[in-house]
Amino acid sequence: MQLGVIGLGRMGRIVVDRTLDAGHDIVAYDVAEEAVESAAKAGAEPADSVADLAEKLGEEKRIWLMVPAGEPVDAALEDLEPYLDGDDVVVDGGNSYFEDSVRRGETTSAAYLDCGTSGGPAGAELGFSLMVGGPEWAYDELTPVFDAVATGPDGHDRMGESGSGHYVKMVHNGVEYALMQTYGEGFELLHEGRYDLDLEAVARTWNNGAVIRSWLLELCEEAFREEGTDLGDVADHIAGGSTGTWTVQEALEQEVPVPLIYEALSERFGSRAPEDGRFSRRLANRLRYGFGRHEVKRD
Amino acid sequence: MQLGVIGLGRMGRIVVDRTLDAGHDIVAYDVAEEAVESAAKAGAEPADSVADLAEKLGEEKRIWLMVPAGEPVDAALEDLEPYLDGDDVVVDGGNSYFEDSVRRGETTSAAYLDCGTSGGPAGAELGFSLMVGGPEWAYDELTPVFDAVATGPDGHDRMGESGSGHYVKMVHNGVEYALMQTYGEGFELLHEGRYDLDLEAVARTWNNGAVIRSWLLELCEEAFREEGTDLGDVADHIAGGSTGTWTVQEALEQEVPVPLIYEALSERFGSRAPEDGRFSRRLANRLRYGFGRHEVKRD
Amino acid sequence: MQLGVIGLGRMGRIVVDRTLDAGHDIVAYDVAEEAVESAAKAGAEPADSVADLAEKLGEEKRIWLMVPAGEPVDAALEDLEPYLDGDDVVVDGGNSYFEDSVRRGETTSAAYLDCGTSGGPAGAELGFSLMVGGPEWAYDELTPVFDAVATGPDGHDRMGESGSGHYVKMVHNGVEYALMQTYGEGFELLHEGRYDLDLEAVARTWNNGAVIRSWLLELCEEAFREEGTDLGDVADHIAGGSTGTWTVQEALEQEVPVPLIYEALSERFGSRAPEDGRFSRRLANRLRYGFGRHEVKRD
Amino acid sequence: MQLGVIGLGRMGRIVVDRTLDAGHDIVAYDVAEEAVESAAKAGAEPADSVADLAEKLGEEKRIWLMVPAGEPVDAALEDLEPYLDGDDVVVDGGNSYFEDSVRRGETTSAAYLDCGTSGGPAGAELGFSLMVGGPEWAYDELTPVFDAVATGPDGHDRMGESGSGHYVKMVHNGVEYALMQTYGEGFELLHEGRYDLDLEAVARTWNNGAVIRSWLLELCEEAFREEGTDLGDVADHIAGGSTGTWTVQEALEQEVPVPLIYEALSERFGSRAPEDGRFSRRLANRLRYGFGRHEVKRD
Repeated sequence: MQLGVIGLGRMGRIVVDRTLDAGHDIVAYDVAEEAVESAAKAGAEPADSVADLAEKLGEEKRIWLMVPAGEPVDAALEDLEPYLDGDDVVVDGGNSYFEDSVRRGETTSAAYLDCGTSGGPAGAELGFSLMVGGPEWAYDELTPVFDAVATGPDGHDRMGESGSGHYVKMVHNGVEYALMQTYGEGFELLHEGRYDLDLEAVARTWNNGAVIRSWLLELCEEAFREEGTDLGDVADHIAGGSTGTWTVQEALEQEVPVPLIYEALSERFGSRAPEDGRFSRRLANRLRYGFGRHEVKRD
Repeated sequence: MQLGVIGLGRMGRIVVDRTLDAGHDIVAYDVAEEAVESAAKAGAEPADSVADLAEKLGEEKRIWLMVPAGEPVDAALEDLEPYLDGDDVVVDGGNSYFEDSVRRGETTSAAYLDCGTSGGPAGAELGFSLMVGGPEWAYDELTPVFDAVATGPDGHDRMGESGSGHYVKMVHNGVEYALMQTYGEGFELLHEGRYDLDLEAVARTWNNGAVIRSWLLELCEEAFREEGTDLGDVADHIAGGSTGTWTVQEALEQEVPVPLIYEALSERFGSRAPEDGRFSRRLANRLRYGFGRHEVKRD
Repeated sequence: MQLGVIGLGRMGRIVVDRTLDAGHDIVAYDVAEEAVESAAKAGAEPADSVADLAEKLGEEKRIWLMVPAGEPVDAALEDLEPYLDGDDVVVDGGNSYFEDSVRRGETTSAAYLDCGTSGGPAGAELGFSLMVGGPEWAYDELTPVFDAVATGPDGHDRMGESGSGHYVKMVHNGVEYALMQTYGEGFELLHEGRYDLDLEAVARTWNNGAVIRSWLLELCEEAFREEGTDLGDVADHIAGGSTGTWTVQEALEQEVPVPLIYEALSERFGSRAPEDGRFSRRLANRLRYGFGRHEVKRD
Repeated sequence: MQLGVIGLGRMGRIVVDRTLDAGHDIVAYDVAEEAVESAAKAGAEPADSVADLAEKLGEEKRIWLMVPAGEPVDAALEDLEPYLDGDDVVVDGGNSYFEDSVRRGETTSAAYLDCGTSGGPAGAELGFSLMVGGPEWAYDELTPVFDAVATGPDGHDRMGESGSGHYVKMVHNGVEYALMQTYGEGFELLHEGRYDLDLEAVARTWNNGAVIRSWLLELCEEAFREEGTDLGDVADHIAGGSTGTWTVQEALEQEVPVPLIYEALSERFGSRAPEDGRFSRRLANRLRYGFGRHEVKRD
């Protein structure tokens, strides 16, 4: 199968490499010329513009977008639109908001597949988990590509209609935040607790047969091995948060309580508090003086 | 009525002053001589030891302990024990753990009243809220004193048998933590939010007729008036926590979910985290590199 | 001062009565004729349409809208628009979303004041707490009316520019949810706990001098007095939730952690779960079988 | 190596089978005769009492206790004590409270190893994860047995001194609660959300390459496969909770915030609320009438 790939960053490049390895033909484009050259060396046919890529693909185009969520997706679709018709298929493999995907599915001339992609750079070797939404025929048509990009046939599935792929991926990420924070709480307690423990050894022992074993726990093990049991100079500052925020927003809309996911998101916000700390706690500090004349700690 | 008061700190002194004002006779003792002298000037009969105080009270002693919770209460009771019999009444007006009060009620020769006291130094003028546990006859007997120390007859009540006074006070304090933190969240959102607000004006407007008006909100108003809308140099550091911890422990034992109270206690712990921050968040920071190769912020 | 009032439900009628009591002239309109008649009996001049009300007010109209948030506000404004110019002032005293108020402030020909109103029907006697946003001259102009509707001069204030009144009211309500749930946790623990307590007595004792005394706690006292210590047949079902949801949404946008407010909102959602319960817990139940072969309770 | 095993329930029997498979000699005892007979058929030497087992083991006894936590462990140790000296080693492989293990380590004549065991019945094939605390020489001595019972050499490790094995296992279980609840929240949102999803397919896709893949997620997949996407008649009722409660208690003692773990425990308590629901929510329901005259839903 011939596939056009737009966006050759870390993730897009993995798509190129895994589909090439599976014997597909790739036409590759990125705004960064060196990314295109590098993909060409790996065996892809280089394109120097979206138009060039579209023309090289001929009829029944199959195109994978792997560009940052938001504006860049709309920009790529706008450039592609003149070349698209109903026999074409466009896959958005990025972290788009599911309502954007629904909208794009409605306004794009091609069949549109929203594809949540999980696994990160480690997916280069293992393959990704792909959650796909959109027209069934388009999903079936792209199956050989999904087989190659995913861990295999079990690593991708059609979740449902347009938007469902990114919807499921959004919830996946909300869950991810809370799993990370949960392991964090456990290791924090062990770190502050009664015994002087080697946390890498704890994580390794858990990863071998314990109920809570997981890939994230393997990454904890790796973190302790590389940073030390006290995590060295790793800062208390968690970046990111958009997909977790979307998850909580959707849960508000659906009136579904997600207190653990909210709490995990909340810890991210807390970790990025202003220099003088959390206002709520500063007020509580002062109120204890108000009613009890307890000394007010001041900076 | 004649009342012996042991412990003449800020709170004990208020007990002395309010009971004197109500026309009772006070015998006062404290380990600090100057506190005894000061109480004497106010009209109390000074005692120079627990034994001296006990002897000055004669038969049917009524004694109010206002010493720090824990060891000091047991020490005072041990000193008093030789002078006590079943016609005497001892009140513990401090923040004792309710199970200690049950034990003391069983081992003290006098009738024992555990009395949770709320209202802080502001109680000097307004009177306190007194939650009393222990034998009914002893509570009835002490009613004139409770009328004087409390805001009035509605400001004290017998909650139930031994320990119930401090039990209700414990839960009161757990609730207090969560109320404070809740106001804190609201004002934090207003402070970080879209409008440039005068938080003293907000609190004052709320305190006049709004559903959420309360004494704690009056203290918020006072805090913003005295510290400014940005709380000046008040630190993000909330001391204390024992009664809140007891509340959560009891809720665990009773299998009653108290997520808001727990969360408020948790914020206190978080506000006292080590210099390098919360371990759980540092791990989450590192894990994002593990699966996504997101840059790790480092100190 | 002459004031037009549109919307004569429970809250609108209180506005009418309190402004009449303060000596102002009222023109009153509602879609329900009997509400208009009733207001007329109380001393207001009846209007039989928005147009009629506008005409009766003449130049420099001052109009108070007290209709349900959402569509009804826009409908009333649309009807009024032909009669308005820049010398007129319209107050929206309902629970509107602040962004709607900003939009209405921009599109209405009159000066527009968004006025968060707290205090509920009890405000009939006490007066309300009014949080006002919008042009300063219009706020100053309406001050005599605000003095009458609020508890007095301290019961209202201009928070800031357009939208800030409803913004502050939104946060007020988020705080309200968490305060209610906090008292609920405390009383739940007392109810399930070790002592057989009279919760009305507990609440009354607390309301007299304790740190946590508040109007909501007075309402708890009333609830226990009227329903009994076990709350009789009051259901575990909390309706409402829009202003709390807005508060959490805004906190997500501002990246401010509000875990207690979120938790309180979450309890509302949980109280309205489907007949078969919370899916998350049903899955946890089944997972315990998965790893531990613990018996699965089934309905 | 010769090993005595006391307690031949599901977990004890797995210890017997795996050590026999590895070529060790087993003496097996249980209060249930048929369990002993069954183990004998599998190749173990039967014992008809603790004393008999102790005598059959001769000098340098190595004994594995796999009996329920609490009283049964103390009873077994009391029976064993007359036969033990400092050359012997006793392993407690159950879910004991770590402070009990510290105490037992001090009062038992043999070297005492507290061994947290995770993996459940599935460990029969895969082997367990073993977290061991106690004297280093005893751990080294038992290594061949641990190699057999665990998944292999990486599936066990000495965490530290006495008690640390059960301490780490306690925290493991606290983490387990929160991981389960987190997956539950995610699937609840997907179940209540916008798309009609096949949750088994979602779980399977996630388990193949997604960041959140784990053994617990494989168990979710199994649960949806066996119960259906709506979990059939699985009840909203989560039993258990002792190790999670211990984890939170220890976190309170260490002043470490564990809001996600607490929340997960809280959901368990909530799932076991009385027939008439959560008192806190019933009060909130009633309070909405108190301030807003909102209709009170009643049972």
